[in-house]
Amino acid sequence: VVALTGPVTVGIDLGGTKVLGVAVDAAGTVVADIRAETPRPTGIARDDAATTAEVIAGVADRLIDDFGPFLPPRGPVPLGVGLPGLVDKGGRLHSAPHLPWAATTDFTAMLRARLPHCTLVADNDATAAAVAEAEMGAAQAASCTVVLTIGTGIGGGLVMGGKVVRGAHGFAAEIGHMVIDPHGPDCPCGRRGCWELYASGSGLGRLAQEALEEGRLTGVLAEEPRRSGDIPGAEVTQAALRGDIPARELLADVAGWLALGLANLVAVLDPSFVVVGGGLIAAGDLLLGPARVALEELLEAGGRRPSVPLVAAVTGERAGAIGAAINARSVLAGPVPATSIP
Amino acid sequence: VVALTGPVTVGIDLGGTKVLGVAVDAAGTVVADIRAETPRPTGIARDDAATTAEVIAGVADRLIDDFGPFLPPRGPVPLGVGLPGLVDKGGRLHSAPHLPWAATTDFTAMLRARLPHCTLVADNDATAAAVAEAEMGAAQAASCTVVLTIGTGIGGGLVMGGKVVRGAHGFAAEIGHMVIDPHGPDCPCGRRGCWELYASGSGLGRLAQEALEEGRLTGVLAEEPRRSGDIPGAEVTQAALRGDIPARELLADVAGWLALGLANLVAVLDPSFVVVGGGLIAAGDLLLGPARVALEELLEAGGRRPSVPLVAAVTGERAGAIGAAINARSVLAGPVPATSIP
Repeated sequence: VVALTGPVTVGIDLGGTKVLGVAVDAAGTVVADIRAETPRPTGIARDDAATTAEVIAGVADRLIDDFGPFLPPRGPVPLGVGLPGLVDKGGRLHSAPHLPWAATTDFTAMLRARLPHCTLVADNDATAAAVAEAEMGAAQAASCTVVLTIGTGIGGGLVMGGKVVRGAHGFAAEIGHMVIDPHGPDCPCGRRGCWELYASGSGLGRLAQEALEEGRLTGVLAEEPRRSGDIPGAEVTQAALRGDIPARELLADVAGWLALGLANLVAVLDPSFVVVGGGLIAAGDLLLGPARVALEELLEAGGRRPSVPLVAAVTGERAGAIGAAINARSVLAGPVPATSIP
Repeated sequence: VVALTGPVTVGIDLGGTKVLGVAVDAAGTVVADIRAETPRPTGIARDDAATTAEVIAGVADRLIDDFGPFLPPRGPVPLGVGLPGLVDKGGRLHSAPHLPWAATTDFTAMLRARLPHCTLVADNDATAAAVAEAEMGAAQAASCTVVLTIGTGIGGGLVMGGKVVRGAHGFAAEIGHMVIDPHGPDCPCGRRGCWELYASGSGLGRLAQEALEEGRLTGVLAEEPRRSGDIPGAEVTQAALRGDIPARELLADVAGWLALGLANLVAVLDPSFVVVGGGLIAAGDLLLGPARVALEELLEAGGRRPSVPLVAAVTGERAGAIGAAINARSVLAGPVPATSIP
């Protein structure tokens, strides 16, 4: 018997490879999580959107069934969803670089139609992660901070006065698509040289691949037989953690690019610190150590101003789903009762 | 006889070539302005700081003498100052790329010592300009906007919920030093490829000079006899306004760079619109027209999201001084009385 602080809300994070659902009680405890595979796109927009909606709805309904007695007692079930793209304040997904179908389908409307028993609160996935960090993680009570989620790409959320700030339309902190090199490689978003092409898991893989093709790569990454274009960032991170020097150098290169974009964010926002989460922080201080040094060097008047600490996120890979569940609380009328449910 | 809405506060803007002081009444009317030349640096930090403080104090004391009866009746005289660099929330100037003496001198303390009869409120000059635009200009009641001041460089101020936001230390919106090309030219701030090297008056002059040296420049700018390195941006703007096509093309190039940095700001902040002020907007729609087109193209999911209007600032070249005078009101205890003084 687990003691829950009710009511429970459900949050779901749509990722590139998996759909992750969590049930979170009013105290912020994750009382369950469920994973499902993200459907592979077929290229037919409406079908891809529908099968993705079906998987999300399946995960939602399993959690709703399991936690029925602990959900808010009246009205539709609050359901938070984190989506990887531009989500407006009404929850509509306008665009997602890695979901080609998002531009031509009103995915949120489709989800709402599939889940008529729920009240859906959709948010950008990284903004939802920032909600989790602001509510129960490293960004609690921060006067001004940015929460980075570094995985395949870079997402972000702004926290000011302890609250997540979403901008005029809900699109704030799309920081992965800051252009940091106008002569850089093409980005799926349609531009060139976006930050997430460099300072991310895919950026790490790309740098490794370039080094391999140019004959500069040594160590375990070079010894592994592989086809072109397929060094995953996670493999570089694992090699670095096991002590491989060339892999560590690649991480340091990524850390330099990370610092370049961070210096721009600091120039714009002057945060008291920056929270870094997402899969790439598995590399720990092999990434954050050189990033801290490079950031200090890149800051305007670095050394004559307070340094900007880089702090690791604490809510882990479930941050987006947890934040989505917290977002769902906004549906509840009045304050959430904090009574304990046995 | 001018009808003043008292009390009057005094604000001073320290620029690269001139010191501008204004007296502003409680209704926001500028009731006087005074100009003096910014002293040319000798290279001896303490002397340069002292002579600059002397000029500022002279301008302040003339306005204080002239408006004595209309100043707040009790206590030290509130005095706002706008400074071109990193100013913390206590008013200390930490660094200013174009004032080499700023890094080694506590200029604010020096000013305070020279003006013991005043309570000094120091702010970044562009942040002060944003205060003016938020209080009485184009940024009034804006939910989220950026106020750009484009002159020799680029300064900025963030406005959220109708208020200027200064970040954790007071250094927010140092947007001219976002790096937009890591392979770009050296910046006086110590880094490379800062935005203000491209999308500013000096950027315009630099592009013109490059075109001249590479034999690409035609029209009136090429005909004028000149030494190397000395096409001022204002001359290009004037030629463009008189119809010179090559000058207009240079402005369009600058507009493209302007849009690149703006797209990054939009990615981070999602403003409802952007306010553009400073000397370079003398070019009007010759600058803002192509900048609007380029921004729309550069925005993530441009065409599938609301466009971000570029709005001209309204407080003009005195924006920084006016904002400094408004900042000075913070010294007054309680609300500013709005009684009319004959």
